Amino acid sequence: MERLFDEELKDLKEKLLRMAGLAEDSIAKAIKALKDRDESLLGLVFAQEEKINLIEIEIDEICMRLLALRQPMAGDLRFITTAMKLGSELERIGDQSVNIAERTVELLKFPQLKPLIDIPRMAGLAQAMVVDSINAFVNRDAELGRRICARDDEVDQLNQQIFRELLTYMMEDAAAIHRAVDLILIGRHLERIADHATNIGEDVIYLVKGKSIKHHIEERGCRTS
Amino acid sequence: MERLFDEELKDLKEKLLRMAGLAEDSIAKAIKALKDRDESLLGLVFAQEEKINLIEIEIDEICMRLLALRQPMAGDLRFITTAMKLGSELERIGDQSVNIAERTVELLKFPQLKPLIDIPRMAGLAQAMVVDSINAFVNRDAELGRRICARDDEVDQLNQQIFRELLTYMMEDAAAIHRAVDLILIGRHLERIADHATNIGEDVIYLVKGKSIKHHIEERGCRTS
Repeated sequence: MERLFDEELKDLKEKLLRMAGLAEDSIAKAIKALKDRDESLLGLVFAQEEKINLIEIEIDEICMRLLALRQPMAGDLRFITTAMKLGSELERIGDQSVNIAERTVELLKFPQLKPLIDIPRMAGLAQAMVVDSINAFVNRDAELGRRICARDDEVDQLNQQIFRELLTYMMEDAAAIHRAVDLILIGRHLERIADHATNIGEDVIYLVKGKSIKHHIEERGCRTS
Repeated sequence: MERLFDEELKDLKEKLLRMAGLAEDSIAKAIKALKDRDESLLGLVFAQEEKINLIEIEIDEICMRLLALRQPMAGDLRFITTAMKLGSELERIGDQSVNIAERTVELLKFPQLKPLIDIPRMAGLAQAMVVDSINAFVNRDAELGRRICARDDEVDQLNQQIFRELLTYMMEDAAAIHRAVDLILIGRHLERIADHATNIGEDVIYLVKGKSIKHHIEERGCRTS
């Protein structure tokens, strides 16, 4: 019975890692499609979202079974309820990648507004945060969780910078407005992805330390925004 | 023991209803501040978010205690894990209201771009969805859950309409760009709030019917986007 429980926990961790890998790859593909103007990648983003959604349901089912049949106590109980939350965060990251892909479909109808530097950089940061956040969970690594939270500020600053730069493009040329707004929205989606990874980082710290750093209740060394 | 369990469930429902009431009120206040150009309301939105965040932590604690000490089976187990998810959705709705309030702080620094009709209408729809979604949960009303999902399309359409109208303002007058982008972002935040209410509606259907309508896995009569 104990061994079966361990195997189910291992299965749960593997599913979360796979889901995080797909989520990271979806961000990468959506941004590569945007940067290289390669529409063929977008279909893969939409297909991967379906896979991500299915894994979320599988994770929920494993967690419900573990809660119902194994009746875990204390540490395991929190690990399982945290896993359910993480599945939901990763599913939202998949949604955000789809939103980026949808905006990219629009953008590829028009000539490129400007070479993209900061958006791919922001995407790279967000991708690393997603992967690290799930690694932090699987390895119960609160220190890694904390470092993810710190990186969220960098993403927010890049997003502010992108926003301001695109505003100047719009001011100078009305023909740039539609594309600039789409790029601003893509920046927001990446910022949101980083927020989800940060939520996971916070949940991991809570899981390991047993105290909530959410919502500024105590000194956090985490999100300042 | 059985009676104590019922009382704790009642406490859980009351906390969710209070949280939903605060979330709805925050949307209303943020949009009233925007529409009536009344900055004094914005402080209340920020203060209410703190309250909402605290209730989420309380809800999580009640749920963890119920799972650990009462070891509920089947129906009750799913009710409790759903309540945890709902707390998280309501917390995000509070965040979105704060985002609207932050954009409003910016917008109130400048003259009004245009009288606002569609944004308050969209907010009204989103507010009703939030309240109804928690009522659907508390009363285990799958039919109400389904109706919430249907209303999400209406919100999405209004948002598209707002987006297109604001683009024309920007095209005509570069001086309108900054304010128009802020209003577009507010439209997105309201759309996101409606999405969270829809998530809750879907969770309620799952809770009552015991099957997932999430992610297009089967015919849903729900979100088409």
